[in-house]
Amino acid sequence: MYQVRTDLALEAREKFQKNDAEVKGVRVEEEKSGNMKVTKVIIETENGAKAMGKPKGSYITLEAPDMADSDEDYHREISRQLAEILKELMPIEKKELSVLVVGLGNREVTPDALGPRVVDNMMITRHIIRKFGKYAFGLKRNHQISSIVPGVMAQTGMETLEIIKGVLDETSPDYIIAIDALAARSTKRLNRTIQITDTGISPGSGVGNHRHALNRESMGIPVVAIGIPTVVDAVTIVSDTMNSLVVAMEETRKLEDLGRSISRLEEAEKYELIRELLSPGLNAMFVTPKDIDESVKRLSFTISEGINMAFFPG
Amino acid sequence: MYQVRTDLALEAREKFQKNDAEVKGVRVEEEKSGNMKVTKVIIETENGAKAMGKPKGSYITLEAPDMADSDEDYHREISRQLAEILKELMPIEKKELSVLVVGLGNREVTPDALGPRVVDNMMITRHIIRKFGKYAFGLKRNHQISSIVPGVMAQTGMETLEIIKGVLDETSPDYIIAIDALAARSTKRLNRTIQITDTGISPGSGVGNHRHALNRESMGIPVVAIGIPTVVDAVTIVSDTMNSLVVAMEETRKLEDLGRSISRLEEAEKYELIRELLSPGLNAMFVTPKDIDESVKRLSFTISEGINMAFFPG
Amino acid sequence: MYQVRTDLALEAREKFQKNDAEVKGVRVEEEKSGNMKVTKVIIETENGAKAMGKPKGSYITLEAPDMADSDEDYHREISRQLAEILKELMPIEKKELSVLVVGLGNREVTPDALGPRVVDNMMITRHIIRKFGKYAFGLKRNHQISSIVPGVMAQTGMETLEIIKGVLDETSPDYIIAIDALAARSTKRLNRTIQITDTGISPGSGVGNHRHALNRESMGIPVVAIGIPTVVDAVTIVSDTMNSLVVAMEETRKLEDLGRSISRLEEAEKYELIRELLSPGLNAMFVTPKDIDESVKRLSFTISEGINMAFFPG
Amino acid sequence: MYQVRTDLALEAREKFQKNDAEVKGVRVEEEKSGNMKVTKVIIETENGAKAMGKPKGSYITLEAPDMADSDEDYHREISRQLAEILKELMPIEKKELSVLVVGLGNREVTPDALGPRVVDNMMITRHIIRKFGKYAFGLKRNHQISSIVPGVMAQTGMETLEIIKGVLDETSPDYIIAIDALAARSTKRLNRTIQITDTGISPGSGVGNHRHALNRESMGIPVVAIGIPTVVDAVTIVSDTMNSLVVAMEETRKLEDLGRSISRLEEAEKYELIRELLSPGLNAMFVTPKDIDESVKRLSFTISEGINMAFFPG
Repeated sequence: MYQVRTDLALEAREKFQKNDAEVKGVRVEEEKSGNMKVTKVIIETENGAKAMGKPKGSYITLEAPDMADSDEDYHREISRQLAEILKELMPIEKKELSVLVVGLGNREVTPDALGPRVVDNMMITRHIIRKFGKYAFGLKRNHQISSIVPGVMAQTGMETLEIIKGVLDETSPDYIIAIDALAARSTKRLNRTIQITDTGISPGSGVGNHRHALNRESMGIPVVAIGIPTVVDAVTIVSDTMNSLVVAMEETRKLEDLGRSISRLEEAEKYELIRELLSPGLNAMFVTPKDIDESVKRLSFTISEGINMAFFPG
Repeated sequence: MYQVRTDLALEAREKFQKNDAEVKGVRVEEEKSGNMKVTKVIIETENGAKAMGKPKGSYITLEAPDMADSDEDYHREISRQLAEILKELMPIEKKELSVLVVGLGNREVTPDALGPRVVDNMMITRHIIRKFGKYAFGLKRNHQISSIVPGVMAQTGMETLEIIKGVLDETSPDYIIAIDALAARSTKRLNRTIQITDTGISPGSGVGNHRHALNRESMGIPVVAIGIPTVVDAVTIVSDTMNSLVVAMEETRKLEDLGRSISRLEEAEKYELIRELLSPGLNAMFVTPKDIDESVKRLSFTISEGINMAFFPG
Repeated sequence: MYQVRTDLALEAREKFQKNDAEVKGVRVEEEKSGNMKVTKVIIETENGAKAMGKPKGSYITLEAPDMADSDEDYHREISRQLAEILKELMPIEKKELSVLVVGLGNREVTPDALGPRVVDNMMITRHIIRKFGKYAFGLKRNHQISSIVPGVMAQTGMETLEIIKGVLDETSPDYIIAIDALAARSTKRLNRTIQITDTGISPGSGVGNHRHALNRESMGIPVVAIGIPTVVDAVTIVSDTMNSLVVAMEETRKLEDLGRSISRLEEAEKYELIRELLSPGLNAMFVTPKDIDESVKRLSFTISEGINMAFFPG
Repeated sequence: MYQVRTDLALEAREKFQKNDAEVKGVRVEEEKSGNMKVTKVIIETENGAKAMGKPKGSYITLEAPDMADSDEDYHREISRQLAEILKELMPIEKKELSVLVVGLGNREVTPDALGPRVVDNMMITRHIIRKFGKYAFGLKRNHQISSIVPGVMAQTGMETLEIIKGVLDETSPDYIIAIDALAARSTKRLNRTIQITDTGISPGSGVGNHRHALNRESMGIPVVAIGIPTVVDAVTIVSDTMNSLVVAMEETRKLEDLGRSISRLEEAEKYELIRELLSPGLNAMFVTPKDIDESVKRLSFTISEGINMAFFPG
């Protein structure tokens, strides 16, 4: 069956809420913190995972309506909240960790550059601690942070996973933090939502559609993923408009029979029809805001600050 | 009335061809050269200009199906053809010219970076000729090439035109060549078409939608514009799919009355409906291919080579 | 006479201090502020200007030993101090100003990229205030900030001054703030000193050696210049080592007559000798630290923050 | 003993030639090809390696006086010559190879960006051949080219070698081609010489001074290294000037005793003296031309073209 694409568990969940349905095996918790909203979607069972189209685990979403603005203090607040969430998902305050930060995506395509640009601002300590010992920074806990920007397959000729796996084998970190630009279903969420999850990156997610999972199973160590939706699939945009059209038609007297006749189509037929009509190649396209440069610059800084705060407080 | 946006005169013309109509005041000439197709759309009268939604002048389009590929010899062929067209539009072989090359667009947004990246590879000679005299290069004609990348308003706080106008006043070139990334109507044309025109840049064109005309009237000297479509408006994508839907429905028995009822809508109603249904903010979005980085890199090189060949043969 | 090159008034002054000499027409004031040192060198007369090799005016130097480190709070402190100095040099708190920020230098050469990178992080408001009026930001004073990165002559074929002059004519700001990477005499000052002056930029200064003055006289409006030394001239490095050699030799018994014989040379002879011996082309070379990328990234942010704080407090 | 640093075997050899000495175990062959000069320095024995300060193997140097110029045809000629040399060092025309191209250095520091920028223009085929089979390109031999830009330790927290080793383990190529910016002794060689060697990269070489060897021994497969000198060590510049000074003094009557007294110093004493006198921190500095941006852009293209020609002729 046709599944409109979203990398956000929040949006996958919303699909069901519209129909007032409870999804078995999926628990949702919401919390307000200032004018930020933190939502936890916890997929607890395999059935829940199947219904949601996402692996079991915790998906924490940080929504902030003004995240797209340039207020610096506000961004600092978001970074702080992100730091708290990371400290919940990883034993940062309990022991010294060795963490590999992976900046996924393509630095040369603006909305896909989030991961590489987060890494640009990371505080990197592994080489210093290994050389000068754990007292080099005079901190209570000396986490060893290393990082890599593996690039995309068209640039390297290799699977991203091959590169990361190789680096793991040589350097044996305890945790991976993977940063990636995501695809949302709704343009309204673009650059306004941070999703943090302990499930890693799934095949088909990200702007460039990863071909393989980057998770505990494939890597052998826990993978925390941080993502921000920066694009919408071109196919999604068109499908959503079509759906709105049907609803609008049914509500409009004048278009009564038009609406009715579309409604009579099966869901599957409807999507198949749209898919056929779409320009060939639209699958290889994305939709993104014209000011995406400003957003990616600001948001990559907000995330790197959050990670830095989590590991190096004070 | 609603006008689906295209910066290509070729696409504006096609609209009429579908209806088998001759457009008064618009002449079209086609020519094959190898596996390139050169089309000239000449808008001769004000009526023609109004019908086409573009100013009077010549619009020369270079279409090459494999322009999106990476075959270097083929790109050299395209550069050569571009050089020939420039020599037709400007008296390059008759006298020594002083030319300001303007790289329009935003270097930080990949599909809008075409103009700035063309300028990166231009052969710049003005300062050398002014310092060492016209024998500095030992060429038959010593054209003085200068260039500027004015940036976009969000970066400079100034209209692009203010900046270019200021530079003109100080340096008095004979010609402007303006390079810009364009918006097409069809995704199939993206990165496969070069449009060269003697009419300059019109308000509303380009990826970032220029607010003012950059042309002979505003600048006081002739402006040759070179553009490649790298994006489609998000609104256009949806509208086009809707239109295909109607056609498809009318052809399908099963959907007979559905198609009929949409056809009964006035054009204007139809577009109004779509516009209302589109996600708010979709106007500020664009659609572009995922491999836009490779395309912009290659095509900016093809254009800069073409200009270099035109002014510095041999 | 040969003059070892420095863009820092502080270093020009030090030359005299070694000889315990007072320089007539030059006043020096020092002040400590935390672990920053603020030095004002005020050149009051033409004679003073001649002796110092710098135009009349105020040169304020902010020295901070740890400026090369990455402590963020500390950099915030430096930004705050810079903001205070700017508010002394310009009537920012008295009236609404229109200010053009000029990022001098070459973005593609790391130690020369300071100016362009400062502009990348500026808060640009001119276009917004002109469109939405002075209440757009809800601030007490609505300064109109615009900016330009003119590039270098090898890229544009034009004098930097021609470009800035043209932009001024079109947009008529009240003030220019010019940011530039400087050349110091001592490697110890690199990336550790900010010089702010009301005299603009002089010919021969900056990493790329500007050919013309950018100041009140040439521009018609006041020019405040902010610079950080990021390179030392290759010639300077060698000369300084030679001088140290002489001193060392005179102090060493074994080398007595060697030292004496060099000392017997006239200053001018000595420099002439060195200049002849230097590899041809060394004049077109610079010396810079290997970690210059980190420094320029951090310092450009510190400066842009300082300017932003001065114009948009709170 | 003090050894003035050069990464060029050619310069290491010249040291001896000045004294008319034959170096045992080192063979030199020269050849003219147009206005290029190809020199092979073959270090055949361990004694030769010790004398030269470089590992055993072949060092082929391509010198072209106009390499620093922008003549495109000329650069194509250099690329062609480079392709020939690569075909001598690797069995490219005998069998299908899997080759990992490694772009060493720091993309953010202009003279160190050569390696990363070469990789930007490589034709990458591994992923395509693995997906579509060996007939994907219709070539006689289908070499699988992959690439990686490992970054520098300050960015990744990892040894470059750890990253490359990890990638090797996962992807098992037959050969590594490593590209790196080198340090020369003479400013005259900067950006004018390409060195190709089958010995890989030695500790201490490159702009950033690699800490470990990247060679057959450490990697388990042959490593061909391609380098261009883009910097001179700051220490070298000063030392060389001092040496020229002594020679000049001895030739000048007036300075007779000065020269004599310096000559009386032992070599070791002289270098020790200079080293002490040099500004602290000069070891962490480099000297590079002001137009290094143009050179690195052009030369990285010349090298990538050469490698592409070697593997994908026609």
